[in-house]
Amino acid sequence: MDLYRRSLQRHRETQGKIEVASRMRLESQDDLSIAYTPGVARPCAVIAEDPARAWDLTWKGRTVAVVSDGSAVLGLGDIGPEAALPVMEGKAALFREFGGVDAVPLVIGVREVDAVVDLVRAVAPTFGGINLEDIAAPRCFAIEEALQDLGIPVLHDDQHGTAVVVAAALANALKVTGRAPADTSVVINGAGAAGRALAALLLADEGIRVGKLRVCDSRGLIHPGREGNDPVKEDIGRRSNPGGETGTLRDVLRGADVFIGVSKADLLDSDDIRTMAKDPVVFALANPDPEIDPALALDGGAAVVGTGRSDYANQVNNVLAFPGLFRGALSVRAKRFTPGMLAAAAGALAAVAGEPSPQRILPSPFNRTVAVEVGRAVAEAARADGVCHECQSPDSSPA
Amino acid sequence: MDLYRRSLQRHRETQGKIEVASRMRLESQDDLSIAYTPGVARPCAVIAEDPARAWDLTWKGRTVAVVSDGSAVLGLGDIGPEAALPVMEGKAALFREFGGVDAVPLVIGVREVDAVVDLVRAVAPTFGGINLEDIAAPRCFAIEEALQDLGIPVLHDDQHGTAVVVAAALANALKVTGRAPADTSVVINGAGAAGRALAALLLADEGIRVGKLRVCDSRGLIHPGREGNDPVKEDIGRRSNPGGETGTLRDVLRGADVFIGVSKADLLDSDDIRTMAKDPVVFALANPDPEIDPALALDGGAAVVGTGRSDYANQVNNVLAFPGLFRGALSVRAKRFTPGMLAAAAGALAAVAGEPSPQRILPSPFNRTVAVEVGRAVAEAARADGVCHECQSPDSSPA
Repeated sequence: MDLYRRSLQRHRETQGKIEVASRMRLESQDDLSIAYTPGVARPCAVIAEDPARAWDLTWKGRTVAVVSDGSAVLGLGDIGPEAALPVMEGKAALFREFGGVDAVPLVIGVREVDAVVDLVRAVAPTFGGINLEDIAAPRCFAIEEALQDLGIPVLHDDQHGTAVVVAAALANALKVTGRAPADTSVVINGAGAAGRALAALLLADEGIRVGKLRVCDSRGLIHPGREGNDPVKEDIGRRSNPGGETGTLRDVLRGADVFIGVSKADLLDSDDIRTMAKDPVVFALANPDPEIDPALALDGGAAVVGTGRSDYANQVNNVLAFPGLFRGALSVRAKRFTPGMLAAAAGALAAVAGEPSPQRILPSPFNRTVAVEVGRAVAEAARADGVCHECQSPDSSPA
Repeated sequence: MDLYRRSLQRHRETQGKIEVASRMRLESQDDLSIAYTPGVARPCAVIAEDPARAWDLTWKGRTVAVVSDGSAVLGLGDIGPEAALPVMEGKAALFREFGGVDAVPLVIGVREVDAVVDLVRAVAPTFGGINLEDIAAPRCFAIEEALQDLGIPVLHDDQHGTAVVVAAALANALKVTGRAPADTSVVINGAGAAGRALAALLLADEGIRVGKLRVCDSRGLIHPGREGNDPVKEDIGRRSNPGGETGTLRDVLRGADVFIGVSKADLLDSDDIRTMAKDPVVFALANPDPEIDPALALDGGAAVVGTGRSDYANQVNNVLAFPGLFRGALSVRAKRFTPGMLAAAAGALAAVAGEPSPQRILPSPFNRTVAVEVGRAVAEAARADGVCHECQSPDSSPA
């Protein structure tokens, strides 16, 4: 039976992918008196006196909400909240399985920036962190930004989770191909959620230099003052292309060391790869169909190829980042994510891969040390950046 | 160690009471391809085509949100959302343990009626039902009422869960004391969330007659047109006391067959019970301290005494109702709760107790057939009332 039919059957058999389980015995009157009335009054009263105690007396300190309006679901687009629920349940299952983090999907029937922001603020007392997911650009930027003062970490995974994994993959691909980041020219195609965050991370923390990074969208190279730029693209243009170069994707690809596609299927062929520098790195991350078939990229001379797919080598998958990002942030009760925490996550992820090879620039998603190491690095960076509510041992896990 | 200390310790050990678990194996690349990308696209697409399929392809069909602003927590009052979280986690654990229903606590930082209503509407795509909890009167009434068109059942448990359990307890207490409902005079003291719903249920479905039911608050018997009546109390007065009688609690207690307190501690003594009819029924449900100590009530001649406490006979506890109410409603995808569904729940609960005795008018909370039987009765009533999305077998459980 094909994958899609098996997936539908499995989802029906289990009626979704996650469930809520009790962590306390409920077998006797005494158990009930402790978990519920009258004993529950005691933790309630303690938290009423000091709300920070909610972190150790309730699930808050180990639980995140995965919030989506279903407006930009990977490969499916705007399918609405109910239809996005299987994806959010999947993320919740992966949070638990790989990060030891409890996660609750919240698919929501509102879209306006203010309405989403108000909703997240309203439910925040329940959770230790908020994972925004599959919310269309440019609303995703404004929503995430407006929530940075919430006192718990709020992260749009399609931006930063992706950026962290790509940055780690790039670091190891440059190692494999013998390049120094400062001398490497990178072309990002796609200026949506992932493209913008990736450009920012590469410039700020991965050693890629302004003037060596070019970001394109469907209209070619983005530059400041380009007609029709929205504020996000204007910002990308100012940061990555202050000199105001212009050109098409093919123009800027010529001679480039690295291509990173976070755009759409079948934009390039092997002749395009041949115009790049020798032994180029090609990450074709559009899902489910990449910007260029990996076989064509290799045929065009690519030294390292990555995609978003599990059926090729070098899968660039957010599951390598989000469980560890939130695990680490929760373990130190971080108030927010900082650029330093994201960079630390990318560094730890690249390191967990061990000695990289062209076929293996990232660790397996089933490597259980990934979230532990990423979490530890994130916690350390949070402490260094002074964004912890209470600084605990980096080994104290939220699980 | 005393109960409160043990409760605090247990809550700290388990860091709260519930967790999110995966229902799907996630051990191989194939598992990941089914639960997450790319296979998850299939259930997403199916639901996008027909949103009703969310009920069988996601957790929606077996999951309720337990929503509270923490403004009226049993025995503690207005302690806010974080401090209310242990209670909501407790309810979630009981939902799972006794009803086979998954439940997610959502403690919220908004209180205005419109804000709470908007929030519940916004998160509704995620859930199959909404349990409102510990929200202060009179906001709880307006919020619940405004959400009845949501398409999923919305129930304020402090009103209707309590009313169902008290109605069942009363039916069996009247049986034990040889009374016919139509000839029974009942005094309810307390016109908050529980008092109003209880009065409505007793009049509509339990055979108590208008003119035989009196509802008091701290200012005595409620009657229509009483100075200072809010709309809720005016409504109670019109329904229960159309003749406009007046008097104090002690006045109306004289000669009454039944006292039901949903008010506050230590209002009555055994002399007050002596003024009631012979062999009266006394439910002193204030928590944690009842309106009258059960020993004093028995000393005053009460034939049947119930409280909210687990350390006396006849504990009147919502856990006997809410798991079965939502289990039944979810099993038929009910659009809302109807008075008939609540009456059916009370009838089933009274029946599960078997032949009642003065010391045992309700089944044990650990009797696993309670939620099954209540659920079955609720599902049948939903079908009879025509409020199902899709009518399934009443035996199909949401678990």
